[in-house]
Amino acid sequence: MSSNDGSSDRVREVKVIAPINIALVKYWGKRNEDLMLPLNDSISLSINDMCAKTRVRIGASVKKDSVSINGSNVCLSKHPGFLRCFKEVRRLIRKRSIISETAGKSEKHDYFSKFEVVSETNFPIEAGLASSAAGFAAIAYGLGQIYQLNISDIIRVARMGSGSACRSILSGLVHWKAGTAEDGTDCICETVFPEDYWPTLRSLILVTSHGTKKVSSSNGMQSTVKTSKLLQARMDIVPEQITKLRNAFRDRNFEQLAKVIMSDSGQLHALCMDTMPSLRYLNDNSWYLMQLIHALNRHCKDTKVAYTFDAGPNCCLFLESVNVPLILAAVNKYCKLPSDLIGM
Amino acid sequence: MSSNDGSSDRVREVKVIAPINIALVKYWGKRNEDLMLPLNDSISLSINDMCAKTRVRIGASVKKDSVSINGSNVCLSKHPGFLRCFKEVRRLIRKRSIISETAGKSEKHDYFSKFEVVSETNFPIEAGLASSAAGFAAIAYGLGQIYQLNISDIIRVARMGSGSACRSILSGLVHWKAGTAEDGTDCICETVFPEDYWPTLRSLILVTSHGTKKVSSSNGMQSTVKTSKLLQARMDIVPEQITKLRNAFRDRNFEQLAKVIMSDSGQLHALCMDTMPSLRYLNDNSWYLMQLIHALNRHCKDTKVAYTFDAGPNCCLFLESVNVPLILAAVNKYCKLPSDLIGM
Repeated sequence: MSSNDGSSDRVREVKVIAPINIALVKYWGKRNEDLMLPLNDSISLSINDMCAKTRVRIGASVKKDSVSINGSNVCLSKHPGFLRCFKEVRRLIRKRSIISETAGKSEKHDYFSKFEVVSETNFPIEAGLASSAAGFAAIAYGLGQIYQLNISDIIRVARMGSGSACRSILSGLVHWKAGTAEDGTDCICETVFPEDYWPTLRSLILVTSHGTKKVSSSNGMQSTVKTSKLLQARMDIVPEQITKLRNAFRDRNFEQLAKVIMSDSGQLHALCMDTMPSLRYLNDNSWYLMQLIHALNRHCKDTKVAYTFDAGPNCCLFLESVNVPLILAAVNKYCKLPSDLIGM
Repeated sequence: MSSNDGSSDRVREVKVIAPINIALVKYWGKRNEDLMLPLNDSISLSINDMCAKTRVRIGASVKKDSVSINGSNVCLSKHPGFLRCFKEVRRLIRKRSIISETAGKSEKHDYFSKFEVVSETNFPIEAGLASSAAGFAAIAYGLGQIYQLNISDIIRVARMGSGSACRSILSGLVHWKAGTAEDGTDCICETVFPEDYWPTLRSLILVTSHGTKKVSSSNGMQSTVKTSKLLQARMDIVPEQITKLRNAFRDRNFEQLAKVIMSDSGQLHALCMDTMPSLRYLNDNSWYLMQLIHALNRHCKDTKVAYTFDAGPNCCLFLESVNVPLILAAVNKYCKLPSDLIGM
């Protein structure tokens, strides 16, 4: 996460670059829809190379809240995440101005400020590639810089936009704790290991579809919470998955890491299948890639690569850097990658 | 199940017609691989129109065990179900001849008899349409007629061929009870409601693929038992599903029936997804049909039709007879059925 504060008296503007994050132990289901509190802990890796570059601006010339993503204006009334996010920022400013005895004209002005957000992503959006995570993290961080919010408030604002966005505020391996408090005060994020802890770990993202999802993650998980009978069992399994993942990462044990993330990916999609009507996020290409990865590992008689799929058909591979040429060659042989990728 | 005994001194021959059965609460996973004992109870409906017509023959001219299905000879060493089935028949004859004081030359001869099986099905085999269930039920029933086995032994022989085959021995709504005894003595089948109990209930089978499965049900469920973390939760859910299904059937409550069978179908495929590597039995057409069924029910503002998918891509619909024209017309409109079906 980086920002560039171009503040002035009239206009305050911040530019932020925020990464996507890929969940290694998945988040699926909320315990509170209004406060955007998750049912279970999750763990992600922030991926800096895939990011949202976002400019957040307030000032006299900004007459209404607006969001533009990759050149298209967003209809805010159709995207409650932005409204929740903005509302939360205003609540925090208001709370501060009430608490602070020194609150003057400027603080009151801030409360009535409108927000202008212009965001660009370097990857397809609404395709299960955590675009909303990067996008809302950037907005939260940008507004947080303008209003000097503390990091836990920034994390909260990001979460109000899109649950998993809170994980993109931090770098490295991030553990998002669901907490149990009704007001969400113990729903926090922490970096478990910094981004340079496992310097040889690489991710490759294989885009199998540029199409947008038929059912958003948000609607999908609501439906799962309402109808899945296996969801509780998943909730009982997650703590063990979290421990295994943290230990695998601590020991830089790739085989154990691979085992946890592939099984956790399968379990997310099992919950989707157990939802009524069943949710389908994987396509033929996703299945082909899963089979290919298992076949490669069998062929190598060693676990060289692991996949994970969020609520979308696109594939995120994890592997050790030494194996990147091998795996890229194999994927190219069996999938015909675009030529600009092959020499990577 | 019907048979025609053409016995003579030299050759004994029985012809059997055995139905497939469609599981409404699914069987997935064994508690004992050798005795073919299931982990959970299941419930099925026997579908008489889809059947295996099988001729079972023994006698001096039958020099070796042989099985032919739809004109192709089966390599018995590759299909352990036939060997287990035949072995179980021989064990039962031997046990009887040891117990019986009057056992003479004929009983001893029977023990050394070879079995000739010639089977024809009127639907694709190895496509998740319970072909093996019909096939093994026919063999078990045929050999049972020749050797005058009692019904529980016939059920046991069918189960040794293919677990779910035991359900095809009985007609109507059949409850296969897993039991808990180690020797499988309490693993039994019973007809809960006779086949004419719900005379207006219809099934339509939509074949979405004539291809054979990449992973057999038997191997698939072994893999699930070894690797799925959600399997135990499913085992805890099944008794409730069984009760709901039996009650729905008792009350001829179509809406409740539909709810149970669609959720149970989803849960089978959820377990498949939670298996490592994940098992895929549904194809694009299966998903299309699931969506179509939900859309039709929503459109009608009433549950008119329910789907279920076994470990294969083919779709079995259940509906009230009054709705057959409506549903066939809708399916035809959106799926282009072969013309010989449309006027059904």
